[in-house]
Amino acid sequence: MKRSIYADNAATTQLDMDVFEVMKPYLIHEFGNPSQKYAFSRSSQKAIQEARTTIADCIGAQPEEIFFTSGGTESDNWAIKSRNTEKFIITSTFEHHAILNSCATFEHIGGNVKYINPTEHGIVTPQSLEMAITENVGLVSIMFVNNELGTIQPIKELSHISHKHGIPFHTDAVQAVGRIPINVDKLGIDMLSASAHKFHGPKGIGFLYIRNGIYVSPFMDGGSQEYGYRAGTENVPAIVGMAAALKKSSDGISQFTAHIESLEDTLLADLTTAKIRYSRNGGTNNLPGLISLSFPGKDGEAIMHRLDLLGVSVSTGSACDSHNTEISHVLRAINLDNESAKGTIRISLGRNNTIQDAHEISLALIKVLSS
Amino acid sequence: MKRSIYADNAATTQLDMDVFEVMKPYLIHEFGNPSQKYAFSRSSQKAIQEARTTIADCIGAQPEEIFFTSGGTESDNWAIKSRNTEKFIITSTFEHHAILNSCATFEHIGGNVKYINPTEHGIVTPQSLEMAITENVGLVSIMFVNNELGTIQPIKELSHISHKHGIPFHTDAVQAVGRIPINVDKLGIDMLSASAHKFHGPKGIGFLYIRNGIYVSPFMDGGSQEYGYRAGTENVPAIVGMAAALKKSSDGISQFTAHIESLEDTLLADLTTAKIRYSRNGGTNNLPGLISLSFPGKDGEAIMHRLDLLGVSVSTGSACDSHNTEISHVLRAINLDNESAKGTIRISLGRNNTIQDAHEISLALIKVLSS
Repeated sequence: MKRSIYADNAATTQLDMDVFEVMKPYLIHEFGNPSQKYAFSRSSQKAIQEARTTIADCIGAQPEEIFFTSGGTESDNWAIKSRNTEKFIITSTFEHHAILNSCATFEHIGGNVKYINPTEHGIVTPQSLEMAITENVGLVSIMFVNNELGTIQPIKELSHISHKHGIPFHTDAVQAVGRIPINVDKLGIDMLSASAHKFHGPKGIGFLYIRNGIYVSPFMDGGSQEYGYRAGTENVPAIVGMAAALKKSSDGISQFTAHIESLEDTLLADLTTAKIRYSRNGGTNNLPGLISLSFPGKDGEAIMHRLDLLGVSVSTGSACDSHNTEISHVLRAINLDNESAKGTIRISLGRNNTIQDAHEISLALIKVLSS
Repeated sequence: MKRSIYADNAATTQLDMDVFEVMKPYLIHEFGNPSQKYAFSRSSQKAIQEARTTIADCIGAQPEEIFFTSGGTESDNWAIKSRNTEKFIITSTFEHHAILNSCATFEHIGGNVKYINPTEHGIVTPQSLEMAITENVGLVSIMFVNNELGTIQPIKELSHISHKHGIPFHTDAVQAVGRIPINVDKLGIDMLSASAHKFHGPKGIGFLYIRNGIYVSPFMDGGSQEYGYRAGTENVPAIVGMAAALKKSSDGISQFTAHIESLEDTLLADLTTAKIRYSRNGGTNNLPGLISLSFPGKDGEAIMHRLDLLGVSVSTGSACDSHNTEISHVLRAINLDNESAKGTIRISLGRNNTIQDAHEISLALIKVLSS
């Protein structure tokens, strides 16, 4: 059987086995509902309290500023839809659909949204935000790392401009958390969305960081969990798993980053050596391992399928766009010419990939492109 | 060390070990994002497709009518908040807070809600619904089994009245699914909320059944998962676990019910033999094992804590109410006198409890009440 290489870590990542072991007791024995007052529930109460502290520590927040959600999509929906419809939201045209479609709903219920275009290098510039700000803005929401391009946004500068105008700043940091060191105070982030399965944690869990003093209304009504801001019995094993995954990712961030950078260099060097013509989308400040490559004149969809037959899993666009065979909204937003856009694939390397993987991916790609 | 007896199965249940084994491969190896098109994701795609069919079969629905959510609370929020605010919602005063607080939000955004009182036996009568219906009603939502009393509502008669007036019928069936045979067609249910951790499935997953032809707007915006109606990367292991748990619960329903009934009979007989004065709240048609007992003149909170010291975990009210030391809204709704209400505990037996457990619970209770 041929070896299978997973190179779509921006879509989801494999659960870390250490994380699985940490989750196991809460999946099996320590199943008490944390809302109950008897002794049996104390271990699950304690577990979510510790998880909240661990997560807060990893991003420089306070425990009571971390709210557990069912994932990045819920966090984004909450951040956007809890805003006052009498004030504008400013966001960008190349956000994840969890933001864009939440904004569409916000408009549908009477709110107004202004969309900033990123540059052709996939960056929302501080100047463009400054120009977009008018009197009546209630929120700025700009993603931390674009999920198709890997471009890292100038979050500190963007939040600084927001704050200058008294506007809270939210970031969809789903691709950044656990991969880039984040300190919400130093970066001036007021709300931040994260998803555990992007950093080797379990699926179905995420969090929304909400700075003390930032007003949000609850998104999910019911019981008094999460200080009354997010109802529903806590998903204890997943919460514990998310904390363990974020801790491991954060503790090893330099080492994992260096490793992934070496994989990226290897892969791109192989392509260059083989004289493959490609252009890399996005600018120079990218998340290591998240590589958007265009091969003008080729068909990205066909490349993806042929790589798949060779045992290599990559993506054409974002996971959520993949049912949609049109050119992705991200590539449109950076004004990529149609021919390049159609010939684009996304390779996303993770810490579980090896140097051998990098070579095999480039070999498979060379084979596909040369035939 | 003293033996610990868990008797709060209405708050949450222990994950079935067979279910855990079914989930394991999807937690560890089969981690592909189901939205992606390469071969590696096919096993997770197939798994959620099969889970959808299994769950649909268990409640007499079609697979495309099952929408995965993060739990019962999300299902309830979705069912209520997706309604047109120009039409009334009719519900009852003793619903779970996931319904009541969603209704409060619905009112806050301009909708109107009518609340029906249950009888003192904890039943929403068809007559009371008939009387509440006026011209402009968009939804009737009545819970299947009350979570504090265990009373089973006359769902078929209630939905019949709704339909006679052309109104869709939703039921929060979180306490009923997997415990009572449910066929959505025979019972005339148009929407149904369920939560896996109430039937020995994992936490953090549930579903909303939405009958073909019933209009709802999406609650969570983003990617095109769940036919575009519920965005967010699918929680594959939890979905697979929920299906396995519901199948096992449904297949064994007669056997589990008979077992739980025998536990209930044993426990109550022990109390009677010991000449303990108690009244059981709710009527005669109760979910087996869900027992609300009042001991007038006693303090339910104190009974709960003293049982806990004896190793027995029971509840005073619903899990979501337990931070709240007032008399529960359910006991108020059935007009229970204050003295009885204050002296109320909820024992909820499950299929993992044994006859020995039933005896030990009653022994502990006798000890606590006699001292």
